[in-house]
Amino acid sequence: MNVIDIKNPKFLKKYKKNDLIKLSHDIREFLIDNISKTGGHLSSNLGVVDLTIAIHKVFDSPKDKIIFDVGHQSYTHKILTGRAKDFKSLRQFNGLSGFQKRSESVYDSYEAGHSSTSLSAALGFALARDLDKKDYHVIAVIGDGSISNGLAYEALNHIGSLDTPLIVILNDNEMSINENVGAMHNLLDKIRSNNGYKSMKKGTKSFLDKIPYLGKPIKKFLSLTKESIKKMYLKEGYVFEELGFEYYGPINGHDYKEMLAYLERAKKANHPVLLHVITEKGKGYPYSEEDLDGVWHGVTPFDKETGEIIKKNDDKIGWSSVISKKLVKLASEDKDIIAITPAMANGSKLNEFKKKYNDRFIDVGIAEEHAIVMANALALEGKKPFVSIYSTFLQRAYDEVQQDVARMNSNVVLGIDRAGIVGEDGETHQGIYDVAYLAHIPNMIITAPKDASEAGDLLYTAFNTKAPFAIRYSRKRILDNESEFKKLEIGSWEEVKKGLDAVIITYGDFVEKALEISKILFKHQYSVGVINARFIKPFDKKMFDTLLKSNKKIFVYEEASLIGSLGSILCTYAENNNYQNNITCFGIKDEFIRQGHYDLVLESLKLDPENISKKIEEKLK
Amino acid sequence: MNVIDIKNPKFLKKYKKNDLIKLSHDIREFLIDNISKTGGHLSSNLGVVDLTIAIHKVFDSPKDKIIFDVGHQSYTHKILTGRAKDFKSLRQFNGLSGFQKRSESVYDSYEAGHSSTSLSAALGFALARDLDKKDYHVIAVIGDGSISNGLAYEALNHIGSLDTPLIVILNDNEMSINENVGAMHNLLDKIRSNNGYKSMKKGTKSFLDKIPYLGKPIKKFLSLTKESIKKMYLKEGYVFEELGFEYYGPINGHDYKEMLAYLERAKKANHPVLLHVITEKGKGYPYSEEDLDGVWHGVTPFDKETGEIIKKNDDKIGWSSVISKKLVKLASEDKDIIAITPAMANGSKLNEFKKKYNDRFIDVGIAEEHAIVMANALALEGKKPFVSIYSTFLQRAYDEVQQDVARMNSNVVLGIDRAGIVGEDGETHQGIYDVAYLAHIPNMIITAPKDASEAGDLLYTAFNTKAPFAIRYSRKRILDNESEFKKLEIGSWEEVKKGLDAVIITYGDFVEKALEISKILFKHQYSVGVINARFIKPFDKKMFDTLLKSNKKIFVYEEASLIGSLGSILCTYAENNNYQNNITCFGIKDEFIRQGHYDLVLESLKLDPENISKKIEEKLK
Repeated sequence: MNVIDIKNPKFLKKYKKNDLIKLSHDIREFLIDNISKTGGHLSSNLGVVDLTIAIHKVFDSPKDKIIFDVGHQSYTHKILTGRAKDFKSLRQFNGLSGFQKRSESVYDSYEAGHSSTSLSAALGFALARDLDKKDYHVIAVIGDGSISNGLAYEALNHIGSLDTPLIVILNDNEMSINENVGAMHNLLDKIRSNNGYKSMKKGTKSFLDKIPYLGKPIKKFLSLTKESIKKMYLKEGYVFEELGFEYYGPINGHDYKEMLAYLERAKKANHPVLLHVITEKGKGYPYSEEDLDGVWHGVTPFDKETGEIIKKNDDKIGWSSVISKKLVKLASEDKDIIAITPAMANGSKLNEFKKKYNDRFIDVGIAEEHAIVMANALALEGKKPFVSIYSTFLQRAYDEVQQDVARMNSNVVLGIDRAGIVGEDGETHQGIYDVAYLAHIPNMIITAPKDASEAGDLLYTAFNTKAPFAIRYSRKRILDNESEFKKLEIGSWEEVKKGLDAVIITYGDFVEKALEISKILFKHQYSVGVINARFIKPFDKKMFDTLLKSNKKIFVYEEASLIGSLGSILCTYAENNNYQNNITCFGIKDEFIRQGHYDLVLESLKLDPENISKKIEEKLK
Repeated sequence: MNVIDIKNPKFLKKYKKNDLIKLSHDIREFLIDNISKTGGHLSSNLGVVDLTIAIHKVFDSPKDKIIFDVGHQSYTHKILTGRAKDFKSLRQFNGLSGFQKRSESVYDSYEAGHSSTSLSAALGFALARDLDKKDYHVIAVIGDGSISNGLAYEALNHIGSLDTPLIVILNDNEMSINENVGAMHNLLDKIRSNNGYKSMKKGTKSFLDKIPYLGKPIKKFLSLTKESIKKMYLKEGYVFEELGFEYYGPINGHDYKEMLAYLERAKKANHPVLLHVITEKGKGYPYSEEDLDGVWHGVTPFDKETGEIIKKNDDKIGWSSVISKKLVKLASEDKDIIAITPAMANGSKLNEFKKKYNDRFIDVGIAEEHAIVMANALALEGKKPFVSIYSTFLQRAYDEVQQDVARMNSNVVLGIDRAGIVGEDGETHQGIYDVAYLAHIPNMIITAPKDASEAGDLLYTAFNTKAPFAIRYSRKRILDNESEFKKLEIGSWEEVKKGLDAVIITYGDFVEKALEISKILFKHQYSVGVINARFIKPFDKKMFDTLLKSNKKIFVYEEASLIGSLGSILCTYAENNNYQNNITCFGIKDEFIRQGHYDLVLESLKLDPENISKKIEEKLK
């Protein structure tokens, strides 16, 4: 079957081993070719081509429910369920999602984007099935990184105590996005190295089974080491067995015979089964196969032949890099600064920090909640933890930011990366809620720099202010700048441009956009000022009062959810203090924001300078 | 030493076993006597009297850091660190906190209130110690319920991969607040029952150590069962060993000899140690010893002799009971309704539901995130999950409510219990943020009933609306009402009282308070109406527009954080739609709210009817 012609996975039922191998090859070619043009998640998808095919051969989706944790490794699943033709539009505006999506296909039973939800979702499906006395299988495919997260453990703990069929496939590729960390990782590592790849074990035999008579066996027994007895006696994956799962592994995730046999066995079980499958990340593409730092995890378009990422032709670098460079500089002078990342060292560009100050660099794995509480205790002991975390993933630690950090008023610095509209990752990754979920937390200071130099100042201010301090910055690229650091007054805004008719209050990347808007409006004979509200909380009461007392029209312009925004705080303030002005807020309306190129998404939300200047002009008329 | 005279734990160093036993007895007497008068956490505190004394005897607090998970079981710690004299004011306004509190004592190194933070905090302290090359011990005391939470697992996973001294004391009392659930619980149960209470094991010997010669040992060996070999060969707590901890247990938590020996051993270790200590909840008080349902977990004042809770003399019952009764009724007619609780069956009064519909009742343990994702999958399969959860604990699942439930727009019904000011539990338990952390989430419907009858209607509406639906209710007591259910129009407000001069928009328990305010103001010649904003989101645009167009003054009155409140949403709406009115918002200012009797706290916040009516009068003058 031609990859592009696949309508649904039924054809797999008749496929023999050689057909499957051929299909694996074709799909890998297809993936490399397509992702090199569109960008997307490469390594994780190449790793699970064979595993996904094997699952679809053995099970009957959509009756059986297959859930891919996070979902960014579901490309082969998409191909097998008839979506190869849509890969040209992968992750683009109105195009194919880079994740599982229920509205996209009946074969997508669950949606994700944040990690470690698959096991809880699988259990929900299994319990609904049992209540309705239906008969279908539920299969969750979860990576070794994701299974280290607390949510996955909560689900494992629950599932393992029940006696209902549910199949967990642990896709162990020795790597989540960055190198894996933690005791669970070490344990999987041990299982892997103890065992090598074995074919079709019938459960490890018990020691007693092996000694029917005395004599030779006993002699052999006495010569065994403690570890080897443990190995003979104990089933590998004993930990999972103790947690209530029937465990099989390690299984070679690129060997169809082995995978099919174990999947069939799991299919027959009437209790929870965990299949520990070893896959090779990036398999089938030499460049990604050799990747140790996770650079081939999520990629922008690249040259298929040379493996070279197609570079942007400008002097700009990403916000993460800007922040990390400033952080490295500050850390050279302040030995209390510690960098913490939940499995995002590469995404957050902390590799340099890690290299220079290895003893002050902590990767906790996919464990956002733990990262925040640990950081809080470090801060209570006088350390200055900088937790670098994506806006969308910090959501997982909302409670800990509030209850631990803010309530104890500790100097934990939150580097909120990928704030604002994220573009191609879409709905599940938008960083548009952090202002709303942090602003109502007492003691929190929330800031956003307009440029590299101000980022340095905010970082410096953060490390020298005894309070929880958040700095939000986007996924966009900006010009770097190596200025000296200076301390900013807490709550101070900055008038970037004077205006007679109106003023736009904004922050972060939108300061530049506001200046554009001001230029457009100037051509239309309006004088519109721009204020950089670099402190979102506390806001600059003095400056805002002055503005309210002037007769200028006030506009607030934000790359954040309108509800809970700076705009809403300012409106509330104006109302409650008897001002008669009318404030107009531009921000993200009450809906989830879909994927697509940043500019297209911004335009679709009518938040681009053209649209905003039109709206302002109407108000000024 | 007299309990009341204890200044610090130093005296323990000289105490012999008999002195310790005497002290245990005295502290238990003291606790029972005091808690019977003030109310507070009884069972958990009685259980750890001996353990806490043993820890303070072996370690040197405050140099060594002792962290009690959740912190509500730290009463003996408070007594040993000089706070017995303050127990008269336990949990009262300006009184002794029911949790650890850094501002209260240098012996309180960390603060909690939400579960399972102790291990992450302990690691933060240990890492700070290592970086500063200091020399102190870090001891975290965590219950068997709390260790089942994901956050605790994230920390265990991290700690176990490091080679630094850190002592985890697993306080296993076979019960968190309700009966424990999950695979980890079953595992601990197995360890407990396999082992009984053993004294001073020197690590379980390996099987080989036991067979120096052939003959008798081999014969014995061959007669062994598989399970007994496992027991002989494997160290108990193998799971924890595999996760990187040196494990000792089970240890009798009421036997000083055993505890002191193991604590001394743990003190000498230069790597993570887990001591599995078995304690008896409620020990020393017959009524709490026999409690299986967790009713002696947190108690109001009771008669020490008879064990009878001092009843309130009215016809009211708690909101939890009202909701649960309605739920039971609805579930009898609608077989798709499922009740889910994260370890709060008793607190949320779900015992009746559990008894009647056991197959539709799920206690997931302390696992809020898992509860929400599982509920979401159940909803996707057509079930109608009702997740009963305290406002403050739902914070842990903010991300899952947003990413799973709201993004997939599923009909998960959130029963947000203990919303508003909680009284004696204080800062860590205030339910004042749910409106702010839910309102900016697309698709969310947020409601609050003013009375029992409306609660039934909202529940009925929730189960018959294809959307995420939150119903918030407080800890207060109200009159029950057995009316029929009717479906309410989504987003509809209700005019409860007409007024000519002004109107108060409010919801929940505050509707009654607003009516009081209206009465007070009527005496002062003002006619003030009351609107029941039972739908906080979406709000009633039609009714609000009408109000804005009238010339009445508008007041919004909420038992919720002002930032992110309904008031802020209404102010933003008014500003953005060119209304010239001034809205005044009364709500909870940007600060953490301390403990105390509800009325005292409300008054201290100037949110009581007397204070509000004064403020409104000033505005109306």
